[in-house]
Amino acid sequence: MNSVKVGLLGFGTVGQGIATILTRNADEITRRTGRRVDVTTAAVRNVAKAEAAASAAGVDITITDDAMSVVNNPDVDIVCEVMGGEQPALDLCLTALAHGKHVITANKALVAMHGNTLFAAAQKYKVMFGFEPAVAGGIPVIKAVREGLAANRIESLAGIINGTGNFILTAMTDQGRDFDDVLDEAQALGYAEADPSFDVDGIDAAHKLTILASIAFGMPLKFDELMIEGIRDIKQEDVVHANELGYAVKHLGIARRRDTDTGPAVELRVHPTLIPQRQLLANVHGVMNAVLVEGDAVGQTLYYGPGAGSEPTGSAAVADITDMVRAMGSDPSHQVPPLAFQADALQDLPVLKPDDIECGYYLRITAEDKPGVMADIAGIFGRHNISLEAILQKEPDAINAADETTATLLPIVLLSHKVREGEMRAAIAEVEALPCVPSPVTLLRVETL
Amino acid sequence: MNSVKVGLLGFGTVGQGIATILTRNADEITRRTGRRVDVTTAAVRNVAKAEAAASAAGVDITITDDAMSVVNNPDVDIVCEVMGGEQPALDLCLTALAHGKHVITANKALVAMHGNTLFAAAQKYKVMFGFEPAVAGGIPVIKAVREGLAANRIESLAGIINGTGNFILTAMTDQGRDFDDVLDEAQALGYAEADPSFDVDGIDAAHKLTILASIAFGMPLKFDELMIEGIRDIKQEDVVHANELGYAVKHLGIARRRDTDTGPAVELRVHPTLIPQRQLLANVHGVMNAVLVEGDAVGQTLYYGPGAGSEPTGSAAVADITDMVRAMGSDPSHQVPPLAFQADALQDLPVLKPDDIECGYYLRITAEDKPGVMADIAGIFGRHNISLEAILQKEPDAINAADETTATLLPIVLLSHKVREGEMRAAIAEVEALPCVPSPVTLLRVETL
Repeated sequence: MNSVKVGLLGFGTVGQGIATILTRNADEITRRTGRRVDVTTAAVRNVAKAEAAASAAGVDITITDDAMSVVNNPDVDIVCEVMGGEQPALDLCLTALAHGKHVITANKALVAMHGNTLFAAAQKYKVMFGFEPAVAGGIPVIKAVREGLAANRIESLAGIINGTGNFILTAMTDQGRDFDDVLDEAQALGYAEADPSFDVDGIDAAHKLTILASIAFGMPLKFDELMIEGIRDIKQEDVVHANELGYAVKHLGIARRRDTDTGPAVELRVHPTLIPQRQLLANVHGVMNAVLVEGDAVGQTLYYGPGAGSEPTGSAAVADITDMVRAMGSDPSHQVPPLAFQADALQDLPVLKPDDIECGYYLRITAEDKPGVMADIAGIFGRHNISLEAILQKEPDAINAADETTATLLPIVLLSHKVREGEMRAAIAEVEALPCVPSPVTLLRVETL
Repeated sequence: MNSVKVGLLGFGTVGQGIATILTRNADEITRRTGRRVDVTTAAVRNVAKAEAAASAAGVDITITDDAMSVVNNPDVDIVCEVMGGEQPALDLCLTALAHGKHVITANKALVAMHGNTLFAAAQKYKVMFGFEPAVAGGIPVIKAVREGLAANRIESLAGIINGTGNFILTAMTDQGRDFDDVLDEAQALGYAEADPSFDVDGIDAAHKLTILASIAFGMPLKFDELMIEGIRDIKQEDVVHANELGYAVKHLGIARRRDTDTGPAVELRVHPTLIPQRQLLANVHGVMNAVLVEGDAVGQTLYYGPGAGSEPTGSAAVADITDMVRAMGSDPSHQVPPLAFQADALQDLPVLKPDDIECGYYLRITAEDKPGVMADIAGIFGRHNISLEAILQKEPDAINAADETTATLLPIVLLSHKVREGEMRAAIAEVEALPCVPSPVTLLRVETL
């Protein structure tokens, strides 16, 4: 049987990983699939640089600067899009699909924002579209949720799906350092980009959560409706207070089914979260990723591994390639649909607005050290029917205490039980209006998982 | 399209879980596969009892005591063997395969001991044979290793794959209790059988490791060649010493590739193991299971979840069912081979003998408290080229110290670097021959993973 030919769009970190794996493990992969798989070509902007990289990696491929020549190439069976960005990636993928090529992408932004279009095109042209490398790097979590947990009605998932953010929070926790300081190190180590906003503002995690939620619940991709918060505003003191209370601070993507008065809906949110230290997710350190999935039959399962990197992400792409090599030529009815559910069986679940999500809350209130302050604050939460699980009243803030012209300020840390966010926001507005509370309240969300 | 009909062999815990899931999640599963799946019949020994269980679960199926009528039934597409034991399970599965039915089993002993025969029969009759529920309950680890990591040359795997054993070791660690005491509780809770030997002597874990190793390395199943040790002899004091040294004691199944002078080989072993407390596997508590897999491209990934139970194991069986429903009618060349590699591409890797495995060692030596003892012991390890990583010399044993007729006895705890087990055994024999060492040396293996 002829070998399967793979063409790459892009030959950066991930593209080189794919080519290296397919070259080094060629025999192993042939033993698995029964067919040889060869990377034959890659389209890049800088041909000379890519040729040097291919040569250094011992990979024998044709480099071109004409991406259309790859997606039009009649000898290419599978196109791997590893160039990133929205355009021209989208047009190239659509062209490849229209030409009957199977397409794999590592581009989470592309899938999160244009997946619905891409899946429809794949269905129309009866080809396969894979995106395992777009979520959680080398962890085969798309396959696990889509196929391994197919028996389940997935109830929720929660994941550490941005390695840069987890590296920063781990260092802030273990080494007592501040956000800015650790971000500098992450940039020096190459974990964070010069413009780190994609990672630290939660956009990257939101792309991945969008995809995970769709395959978990069988719903269209709805990136625009996610609630997104990053880790830029996490203060060292909040990490310390959380630890004292038995919690770790992790940046999570959370998707959860909710039955509301108006019918089934979902929460889709990305934000820093306090989780119990004994939880396995709390012990996922550094750049590693992990996704905890709750199904109605299986209960909780967790998938852990490297969320980025050349060969880890390449591993996910090559897993998609081997699936495609096996399924090639079979009727699409025998193949796993991209979003786990048949295209005509997706359910258009509404995404709850931020005010309607429900979770526990960590609040840090800075208040003047005066009689009656605690009673005023507690009274507000009581009137809003918010019950408190823990109160940590700290020593007066050293800096403020030294300033004799102002009243001494006390940090008060509260943990609430689960409550609707709108209710909590209303209570906080009242707290902030108290004369003895001079500055905004810090809010973090709490999940017991 | 007609619905797919599933027949069960057995209607105990797992059988009821499968029927319950397929009934409760019927719509969800149809949305995934595009076809309805119905459990229609179950064969059991006690019909009245099974009918009562089916009725209680709200499951509408025909119960029979004639298992052959299920495997011969022309209306059954998929047979799920959840009766356990070697026979008649083996004959029934072979008969079902010969009748063109796809077969799924939750029976780890059956697969570990007769998998080679069963896979050959499935290939001969061009049907599918699934066994996801046979390993690690609800964790889709067979799929992860076989498909999700298909890009990789798997180097090693290490798993907590017996929930009963992990429950016992967790309680010994967290509560300072002895083995016998916790075993009694595990039996009272229903985690351990009246005859607990399958679990606590490592047989059950060995069955699962046999299967995992074969799909990881693409080699035939070789249950008879495993090195197997259980947890019956684990002493509370060793758990305590391990913790002091920064290690947790876990019962692991370990499979590892080794390049030897005579060519490629594998280590396949099941035994109590000291692993660093910060390792994620060390934080898998109670009856939960987890498998850590190391691939050459992806690095380390870990899969965690419930290793047993009605619906968790049922979840794995129904995942196999949905895979089969999708692939039914496709050419076998489009399907994933049972052992991940094409049947004609398996590699008959030799299994190393116990003396030839390599790892670190934890030794507890009880020696008389006399001058020169430490020098004698250290000298022996030095002559065997065994370097020591840590030495923990404990206070004299209280009981012995009180007995004035004998010399005071000291427990000496040693951690060695990685060494061949044969060499370590030879050194221990010499230590045990010293006049100042009156009792056998306690040996546990250490893995840094």
